[in-house]
Amino acid sequence: MSVTDELLANNAAYAESFQGPLPLPPAKHVAVLACMDARLNVYGILGLQEGEAHVIRNAGGVVTDDEIRSLAISQRLLGTKEIILIHHTDCGMLTFTDDEFKKGIQDETGLKPQWAAESFTDLDTDVRQSINRIKASPYIPHTDQVRGFVFDVATGKLDEVV
Amino acid sequence: MSVTDELLANNAAYAESFQGPLPLPPAKHVAVLACMDARLNVYGILGLQEGEAHVIRNAGGVVTDDEIRSLAISQRLLGTKEIILIHHTDCGMLTFTDDEFKKGIQDETGLKPQWAAESFTDLDTDVRQSINRIKASPYIPHTDQVRGFVFDVATGKLDEVV
Repeated sequence: MSVTDELLANNAAYAESFQGPLPLPPAKHVAVLACMDARLNVYGILGLQEGEAHVIRNAGGVVTDDEIRSLAISQRLLGTKEIILIHHTDCGMLTFTDDEFKKGIQDETGLKPQWAAESFTDLDTDVRQSINRIKASPYIPHTDQVRGFVFDVATGKLDEVV
Repeated sequence: MSVTDELLANNAAYAESFQGPLPLPPAKHVAVLACMDARLNVYGILGLQEGEAHVIRNAGGVVTDDEIRSLAISQRLLGTKEIILIHHTDCGMLTFTDDEFKKGIQDETGLKPQWAAESFTDLDTDVRQSINRIKASPYIPHTDQVRGFVFDVATGKLDEVV
């Protein structure tokens, strides 16, 4: 049995006690952008319930065109107004450089990705970079409540980057 | 008090019973790519625990360069091998067209986004499109276990797209 099959069996148990449907727009008018890291249970970390917040995630919790796309749809079509960014300690993005990652792919496949891998060397600096990219985008209407945090994978606490 | 402040208060309660740190690589060697929709609690839907799976999310759960970037990092550097795609019923991406969304932004800001909004008209077709984009990418090494599902926001159940 694949892991996917095992997780599908979990879904049957989830559906048994599921209460739906809820409304489409997020009830708390907030969008969270976090790293994809397996240790970040965003609903748990923020005490979110189903239906309350958009959750956007990628490697690093960084801001590229695709996160601008998601945030623009979130704010313009579905009414969110606040943005919470979450990076975290012990992040995989701190363990490599873009150049070495892309060279590894090129050596193996003969093709070098045309995108940046978005690795970084300092958590706080990259959180500020992400906030700045959002504030610099002409497509995100609400940027007065954009706050960034580092989640500590040892303690479970969020520390704000100021 | 902002919603962000309210959620930070929730984090203090989460940290009190938090057990960490867990290892960095996902224990179940799986990456999930799901829509950002507020009603999709991915950990709940799949019965995932902290540390088990990468979770990537965006508007629609679609595959663009940034999801290829995240999946390439997930598989090449952190050992995941299976991919689970989750779209869902009552998705906001079914309610607009790229042209009208981008025209709205252009009318308001004078700038037309250079990216596609990635709206779609049929859930199953877009799940298959996402699977095909992953399988067509030269940067994702493991594509024999890529399966796609539609989450029913009324019942809590995942239905596989075949």
